[in-house]
Amino acid sequence: MTFPLDSTHDPDLRSWVEGADDHSDFPIQNLPLGMFSPEDRSPRAAMAIGDYVLDLVAAADAGLIGGDAARIVRETGEQLNLLLAAGAPVRVELRQQVSRLLAVGSEHEAAARACLFAHTDVTMHLPAQIGDYTDFYVGVHHATNIGKLFRPDNPLLPNYKHVPIGYHGRASSIRPSGAPLKRPVGQQKGEEGPVFGPSKRLDYELEMGVWISQGNALGDPIDIASASEHIAGLSLFNDWSARDIQAWEYQPLGPFLSKSFLSTVSPWIVTAEALAPFRIAQPARPEGDPAPLPYLIDETDQASGAFAITLEVYLSSAKMRNQGLTDLKLSSGPASNMYWTVAQMVTHHTVNGCNLLPGDLLGTGTISAPDRSGYGSLMELSSGGKEPIDLPGGETRTFLEDGDRISLRGTLSAPGFRSIGFGACVGDVTPAREY
Amino acid sequence: MTFPLDSTHDPDLRSWVEGADDHSDFPIQNLPLGMFSPEDRSPRAAMAIGDYVLDLVAAADAGLIGGDAARIVRETGEQLNLLLAAGAPVRVELRQQVSRLLAVGSEHEAAARACLFAHTDVTMHLPAQIGDYTDFYVGVHHATNIGKLFRPDNPLLPNYKHVPIGYHGRASSIRPSGAPLKRPVGQQKGEEGPVFGPSKRLDYELEMGVWISQGNALGDPIDIASASEHIAGLSLFNDWSARDIQAWEYQPLGPFLSKSFLSTVSPWIVTAEALAPFRIAQPARPEGDPAPLPYLIDETDQASGAFAITLEVYLSSAKMRNQGLTDLKLSSGPASNMYWTVAQMVTHHTVNGCNLLPGDLLGTGTISAPDRSGYGSLMELSSGGKEPIDLPGGETRTFLEDGDRISLRGTLSAPGFRSIGFGACVGDVTPAREY
Repeated sequence: MTFPLDSTHDPDLRSWVEGADDHSDFPIQNLPLGMFSPEDRSPRAAMAIGDYVLDLVAAADAGLIGGDAARIVRETGEQLNLLLAAGAPVRVELRQQVSRLLAVGSEHEAAARACLFAHTDVTMHLPAQIGDYTDFYVGVHHATNIGKLFRPDNPLLPNYKHVPIGYHGRASSIRPSGAPLKRPVGQQKGEEGPVFGPSKRLDYELEMGVWISQGNALGDPIDIASASEHIAGLSLFNDWSARDIQAWEYQPLGPFLSKSFLSTVSPWIVTAEALAPFRIAQPARPEGDPAPLPYLIDETDQASGAFAITLEVYLSSAKMRNQGLTDLKLSSGPASNMYWTVAQMVTHHTVNGCNLLPGDLLGTGTISAPDRSGYGSLMELSSGGKEPIDLPGGETRTFLEDGDRISLRGTLSAPGFRSIGFGACVGDVTPAREY
Repeated sequence: MTFPLDSTHDPDLRSWVEGADDHSDFPIQNLPLGMFSPEDRSPRAAMAIGDYVLDLVAAADAGLIGGDAARIVRETGEQLNLLLAAGAPVRVELRQQVSRLLAVGSEHEAAARACLFAHTDVTMHLPAQIGDYTDFYVGVHHATNIGKLFRPDNPLLPNYKHVPIGYHGRASSIRPSGAPLKRPVGQQKGEEGPVFGPSKRLDYELEMGVWISQGNALGDPIDIASASEHIAGLSLFNDWSARDIQAWEYQPLGPFLSKSFLSTVSPWIVTAEALAPFRIAQPARPEGDPAPLPYLIDETDQASGAFAITLEVYLSSAKMRNQGLTDLKLSSGPASNMYWTVAQMVTHHTVNGCNLLPGDLLGTGTISAPDRSGYGSLMELSSGGKEPIDLPGGETRTFLEDGDRISLRGTLSAPGFRSIGFGACVGDVTPAREY
């Protein structure tokens, strides 16, 4: 498939919404989809513009958007699943109408202004009801770094370069940015048998989230040439992990309680349409690596299946915030450090006949750069807890302490286009329960 | 908690519904919950009685059942989740009313008769919308048998006797009994790198399914003393598995496409109330095994947290059915071959703060007996494919062939009580797609 550009991508397009043109994440070229609640009201569909939220239901009711887009926005209720299921044609129709509505020169500025809410006045929700959540492991440098901790001479297992490795995750405990992280309690390996208590090796994982639009019927795989049509957009995703619980529990069936206590997603879906200018070629495989099996190969996907995204992670401790110190940037690196494209993830997921549903979420797995400046977890940054990191103000960290705040950021940039971003993906660590 | 018996459990209770008294699975002492569709109508809540289905919505509308039970039945829509969320009090109220309605001597036999549909005339659905599905691995003999194939001297990993091992499964591909199994296609290990094609080592797994009633809030675990209150009931569960896909993909993050192509559940929830007479003590751990950590131990659960269920598996090939041959019984054994109770599964699942939701499904993992007569998978029965099984009519099997039908059966028996069962959990293997 192709990823058409239109007037909504024009870098010279400006919005009449105050501050939108200066907003690093949500200028008028972005228009991500989400679900919000104005005070005391039920959740409804929205697009972000600058520091504001456009109430799409109100805009539809006021006749400011029309056609199938308006009908589906009104029908979609408290989750975006119905809108996601409608696929690209309806998203494009909605994007083009909202772009005209919010652009300088709109005839309906006054009416549209009545549909705006300041972001600070609303509650953001998960954009969709997530039926199933799957986490992949496509960050090849992360897989290598983690593998080295266990198998220095042979970090990647024999299947890694053939299989987009993934596993089922817990959908019920995914929360939007801002949800507190209660330190999990559980079994860990002790010197003489297991011990029980709060995790002492609590970590974050820098990931991207992939939202599914149209699904597929059970038994009917999605081929690689059409996989992109099933992707509604991307978010930032923090797959918090308790490394001590994980080390003890994960054999032979994989991570379970070490992950299922919380995952944090940025609440705005940056749509496939907004992503179009930032598509880049999937990086060539290193010399000597095997070619993927044919079912995972598509020329267009290889040419444009990766994204020009810079991913960053910031940490602040409670003490740092009390002292007014700036967040520490833990890492910065490109999202293209993925061994497989998101389209390959979708196709592999369904090759056995497994059905995806609108609103399903796929995690990429931790995305790390080859060098330390872009490591996507504390497990890597602290070399498995052996090398503490210095924080501003004199503290050190191997793993997360109560009061720590992790913030993910992602910025999409391409020559000749307006940069856009994902908005916040933040979580604060709070103390474990009494146990 | 305790599991009270009442007049609904009276073994002498008889129903006016023809044949119900002779029905091995659904006499009036059972009254399992499910969702059915009469021809051309939308799904609705039901109870099974003999070869009939009682339309609970019609019974409520006719005033044959009342109170909270009737109100919630009417509100529950196309899935039982709302009824499950209401917990034991509403289930008990419903059970007692339906028991009186269907018992010999009921004043409302004529009116109730209008709410009955022959099982052969209706379509059964999944009883609930399954938010998340988790599969455990508590069948200790299965874990030992499988472990022996890889590690003859050390079949169980060090965590097994401390941790109720589990992993997240795929919810979207769970289907009720009768759904066809299209043979999955995928990557398998070849002599020189991976090969791609239909699975050649397709297997079933004999499991029980555990339905969650009330859930818990994120961050608030369910303690072992109250875990049983969160269990709505049990079904039979077949966790079909592609052993060749599994062997190649499962390291390091666990089973994924080897399981997610289909799981089959019996569509009737045999409720906690119906199960009450069949509770037995959890079998004592073998001499020398470690005691569970305190968070997993409750006196009542140890005294009555297992169930007197005989589980059986039957196979018929297309050729056997064509020749009119009887299904081959592959195995028979007790469900008490579980190293952990279902209450321990629930408590462990939530100990890290993970939230369960009404309608979530937990699989027990394959339940095998210590000896061959009760092995719960072909992987065990054929010693990893090395020892073919003889079928009536001259065929042999290591793994499943196209046209094979697997039927699970489960029967609950206890002295002084009427035996009950789960109904059908059946699936036919159909050919792989073109690839």
